[in-house]
Amino acid sequence: MALSIFSDEHFMGEALKQAQIAFEEDEVPVGAVIVAENRIIARAHNQTERLNDVTAHAEMLALTSAANYLGGKYLHECTMYVTLEPCVMCAGAQYWAQLGKLVFAASDEKRGFSMVGKKLLHPRTEVVSGLLKSESEALLKQFFSKLR
Amino acid sequence: MALSIFSDEHFMGEALKQAQIAFEEDEVPVGAVIVAENRIIARAHNQTERLNDVTAHAEMLALTSAANYLGGKYLHECTMYVTLEPCVMCAGAQYWAQLGKLVFAASDEKRGFSMVGKKLLHPRTEVVSGLLKSESEALLKQFFSKLR
Repeated sequence: MALSIFSDEHFMGEALKQAQIAFEEDEVPVGAVIVAENRIIARAHNQTERLNDVTAHAEMLALTSAANYLGGKYLHECTMYVTLEPCVMCAGAQYWAQLGKLVFAASDEKRGFSMVGKKLLHPRTEVVSGLLKSESEALLKQFFSKLR
Repeated sequence: MALSIFSDEHFMGEALKQAQIAFEEDEVPVGAVIVAENRIIARAHNQTERLNDVTAHAEMLALTSAANYLGGKYLHECTMYVTLEPCVMCAGAQYWAQLGKLVFAASDEKRGFSMVGKKLLHPRTEVVSGLLKSESEALLKQFFSKLR
């Protein structure tokens, strides 16, 4: 079945492509895209190793990039697709951006924001989880097994 | 009484100078410095308006700058002095950096990380609060009264 170009699955597939880029660069494989009016306005992958910077998570880079594209720092009308549940830092940034919708694939039981509570996000942010979860988990598992 | 150049008060005074720069640039006046072995290795002020980026808090910019200076992204041996209690995003970033010590001036009862719980920070991060609190509060108050 062909996926609609405007489906959540399609956009999460694009986030997975970003995670794959991170994987190939020996970064923890997490990718994100931000969509506004059915168009991808930002793509990013985790670059903490390359940039030597703990703040360079895929979500943070995507938020900066989307704000730059839009010329405004609030993302009320945007959806972020990310392959792993955001951490506390990224959820805090999504709060400030007043992100409209967050769709994430795999859960992060160690450092995911929901460990601390949904109130880290903006009250207006809609949350969907589990989309293409097994694809994201497979990539993360492959990465961490390579490290051992 | 002259302040020791190595005192917490001295370094918080330097963070306040950064907050003053933010104030003069019509940014919410928050400043931060990071100290390693009694030397300031990073100085930053809030630039969310100028950079049009919700992630450009003083603490985030200081973390990136310090990691760049040190050539390593972990700040175990460093102290961050910041004029306002870090938000959830910044506390999450300090967790990843494994910051050695955090000293903040004014509390942020709305968006401070301690609203959610100290467990946002790394368990090894020592926390001191209230230093030069009234100076920081006065600057924030002046800023917000100017907006009205």
